[in-house]
Amino acid sequence: MGYSYWRGGRHLDPAEFELFFREAPFGGFGLFLGLGDCVRFLREFRFSTEDIEFLKSAMPSSTEEGFFHYLSTVDASGVTLWSFPEGSVVFAREPLMKVQGPLLVVQLLETTLLCLVNYASLVGTNAARYRLAAGPDKKLVEMGLRRAQGPDGGLSASKYCYVGGFDLTSNVLAGKLFGVPLAGTVAHSYVSSFSSPDDVTPMTLTPAKGQGEGVDLLDLSTRYLKEVCEVIEVPRDGTKSEELAAFVSYAVSFPHNFLMVLDTYNVMSSGVPNFCAVARALHHLGYRAVGVRLDSGDLARQSVEIRKIFKKCAERFGIPIFKDFTIAVSNNISETSMGRISKENNEINVVGVGTHLVTCTQQPSLGCVYKLVQVNHIPCIKVSEDEEKTTIPGSKSVYRLYDNEGHPILDLMAGADELPPVIGTELQCHKLGSNGEVELVVPYKAELMHSIYFEGRGLSVMQDHCGETLPSLQKIRDHARRSIEILSPEHRNLEKPEPYRVAVTEKLHKLLLRLRGTSPLDRDLPRNGC
Amino acid sequence: MGYSYWRGGRHLDPAEFELFFREAPFGGFGLFLGLGDCVRFLREFRFSTEDIEFLKSAMPSSTEEGFFHYLSTVDASGVTLWSFPEGSVVFAREPLMKVQGPLLVVQLLETTLLCLVNYASLVGTNAARYRLAAGPDKKLVEMGLRRAQGPDGGLSASKYCYVGGFDLTSNVLAGKLFGVPLAGTVAHSYVSSFSSPDDVTPMTLTPAKGQGEGVDLLDLSTRYLKEVCEVIEVPRDGTKSEELAAFVSYAVSFPHNFLMVLDTYNVMSSGVPNFCAVARALHHLGYRAVGVRLDSGDLARQSVEIRKIFKKCAERFGIPIFKDFTIAVSNNISETSMGRISKENNEINVVGVGTHLVTCTQQPSLGCVYKLVQVNHIPCIKVSEDEEKTTIPGSKSVYRLYDNEGHPILDLMAGADELPPVIGTELQCHKLGSNGEVELVVPYKAELMHSIYFEGRGLSVMQDHCGETLPSLQKIRDHARRSIEILSPEHRNLEKPEPYRVAVTEKLHKLLLRLRGTSPLDRDLPRNGC
Repeated sequence: MGYSYWRGGRHLDPAEFELFFREAPFGGFGLFLGLGDCVRFLREFRFSTEDIEFLKSAMPSSTEEGFFHYLSTVDASGVTLWSFPEGSVVFAREPLMKVQGPLLVVQLLETTLLCLVNYASLVGTNAARYRLAAGPDKKLVEMGLRRAQGPDGGLSASKYCYVGGFDLTSNVLAGKLFGVPLAGTVAHSYVSSFSSPDDVTPMTLTPAKGQGEGVDLLDLSTRYLKEVCEVIEVPRDGTKSEELAAFVSYAVSFPHNFLMVLDTYNVMSSGVPNFCAVARALHHLGYRAVGVRLDSGDLARQSVEIRKIFKKCAERFGIPIFKDFTIAVSNNISETSMGRISKENNEINVVGVGTHLVTCTQQPSLGCVYKLVQVNHIPCIKVSEDEEKTTIPGSKSVYRLYDNEGHPILDLMAGADELPPVIGTELQCHKLGSNGEVELVVPYKAELMHSIYFEGRGLSVMQDHCGETLPSLQKIRDHARRSIEILSPEHRNLEKPEPYRVAVTEKLHKLLLRLRGTSPLDRDLPRNGC
Repeated sequence: MGYSYWRGGRHLDPAEFELFFREAPFGGFGLFLGLGDCVRFLREFRFSTEDIEFLKSAMPSSTEEGFFHYLSTVDASGVTLWSFPEGSVVFAREPLMKVQGPLLVVQLLETTLLCLVNYASLVGTNAARYRLAAGPDKKLVEMGLRRAQGPDGGLSASKYCYVGGFDLTSNVLAGKLFGVPLAGTVAHSYVSSFSSPDDVTPMTLTPAKGQGEGVDLLDLSTRYLKEVCEVIEVPRDGTKSEELAAFVSYAVSFPHNFLMVLDTYNVMSSGVPNFCAVARALHHLGYRAVGVRLDSGDLARQSVEIRKIFKKCAERFGIPIFKDFTIAVSNNISETSMGRISKENNEINVVGVGTHLVTCTQQPSLGCVYKLVQVNHIPCIKVSEDEEKTTIPGSKSVYRLYDNEGHPILDLMAGADELPPVIGTELQCHKLGSNGEVELVVPYKAELMHSIYFEGRGLSVMQDHCGETLPSLQKIRDHARRSIEILSPEHRNLEKPEPYRVAVTEKLHKLLLRLRGTSPLDRDLPRNGC
């Protein structure tokens, strides 16, 4: 395509593409993410000598040499990128980004921009849904690296799940590169690597205050185990001594960070008493254990049972911190199971989610597309029998209209040359997906959603609408949280959300009809859409 | 975990992990891929000074300095990697890879090895299924970059779909880095960027033989269009002149590679006659057009109609090549729709697949796990109430047993110290997932599936079992094709495959029972599994 534009002398024609999705992810709202990556890509966009040599070898031999010379001069210096702020809630068919520049260059950007926005937005939206399903109080840990599309897919997942509302990741590189807070877990293999209490030295731990001799923690824990078994009424001989050895060995290494997986053998008859014994021993030495992790079975029910045991221990041992130990769970958690757990009686504090989060099982791809809306300042259309697949022509602005309670009620697309909506005045909005049905809306506030994030001509300014440089991950995360918070509960609903209205102005509606050739008035007029 | 192993003096204990999946992808066979990436990773595995500084900041302040010093010395020089050949058909629960080495090091490798094998094997298996659904003759083009998990997820997809049986990719970087053959497509935006025949110069094309003056191809095509419309009986005024301009402009740029998308306006009333007119004009100048692409509607039915038109043109114009033009299709193709298309009457030569291929919609993750099977030469087990989740202890060999027709019939796991199966002799095999039900099998051939692919001690030899260096992508692709070809039709079946049998030897079965503690004879013996 690029060669043909160049060969036809059209490569510099001013053009505009829009990036949008036709259907909202998971049937609800979308969270727009990936903008920062797009800006960083534009900043560096050019072909290396090596790239051009490769293209020469891959393209037909009839390709003129001048084209490759032109390619070697191409960069994004003619490109202007308008965009929603990263982390905004977005809806179907509105332009998330508008990309203006020379036809050939903005066409070349298509696949990369789509690739950078599609997965980031999809997985971030998915994370936001898990957050809504879990409620605000539970800590959410992303742990999907092993199931992502390779190491870099996993890195994107960790970054954008954090932005979408997760608290922590098990992906250490995401901590190093992006500052995402880290959480590790102990695997079953750690526990099962111990075959007997003799497996390990040293087992001595010095008291937390640093005063006094080191104490043999295995010995101390073994003594407390007897007492624990009596208190929680489980037979002592059902506890695995090799599991106790593993717990003690870990506690000696991490006396301030003792959180153990309980289901290598049996949660109730071995994992729980062994944990309580070691936690009791740590307390004796002035340390505070952190908690436990469950990785199988009925997580909510087990958490309730374990909390009861912790409370009983707290009371019987006179150690109040026992009641507050963290109960973490994992095990193939989906949005549905997360929602179910949250609705049930449960005592879960931390949830680790991997596979279903990063692969977005419910909908593993976001169908963002990149469509031409204008060339040489003439609006373009791609007609389709499917109304949803017909593009909305011309350069446009998007206004988010709010009701008097501060909830967004409708996103209105207007021609870029139209005046903004007047607050407090009735507006005619033609709803998309409804054969242009008119809605009358009186906005209490109208927000212009696009700002320039990259303006290549002359110099690259990469500023958001507040005049600052690209926002930090933390700022994007905060913006995402607020964007979701101000949605009305009906639009935020996970299971049966009320469809959010996206509409076009009267003027844009007429242009659309005219270019589509279905306006009775305009049928005989020349169509100047390209 | 690593710190605790080190702190307990166990970090150098010889250990062995196995990498396997518990359930076969898509309910059928798996294709094992990603081995080369794992070997490359092992070769480079070490912590940079920067990594160690970061870990110091991320780990508890009580972590001893000596640990970080130790980490700075860690590499894969103590690691031995046994593996199936890359591209082999594999089944649930058998070790695809066995990783032997110091406990701490082989534990650290877990997530990366899983990440490298999981997606590569999943997407490669998916590609192989598309190939089976499509049959051997159609060209398959992978075009999923925009829907993958970021640029690198997309690159893995392109690489492993090629290995799994695709012919081409639209991902240019995969061509550059891995030599995957490339195929481009023309987007609708190319066509819709033309608003009138005046949009373009030059429209002249010189004859293929290079003799004679340049001819105005738009003029020539417009003249042929009249004739074409008569022959194929469509009204001339239903053809879009802006589409013809786009086709001509592309043909002038790529006279030897003219393949156009037909559905920007209307396939039958505009796309087809415009294409035929330009193809006729190209032929006049000694060029051969390539074909057309359909991106919407009933692809099989349209392909049949279009082939009829091509044949009619071939006959009426006396140009035989018209009958053989390529008909390429795309539009959200799934394995199911691919299978349906192949079974219907169709004239499709090329199929482009994106979203469902790279995201593996049917099953977006492969659940490979990495489990400890041995420490200090003592077999380990992780017990679970779910029999499938109980690990199979100890270091083992896998033998693939074949019948007298050369089809694999059963994969047999044996202790690493057991003798290989004797050909022609009845073997007792305990089938997995059947409470150890015994099958008697007489193998006509037994193939040992694991070889050493990385042996770090001393020097890295990265040789396959033939003594060669790591096989090329092309060799892996050939091996994958052969592995699938020799499967019996029942095991290769996509919809209702017969489950392939995976079994353990009598000796391994007894070890499993003993460590699981369910053998009546061994219940009172000491369990020496770790």
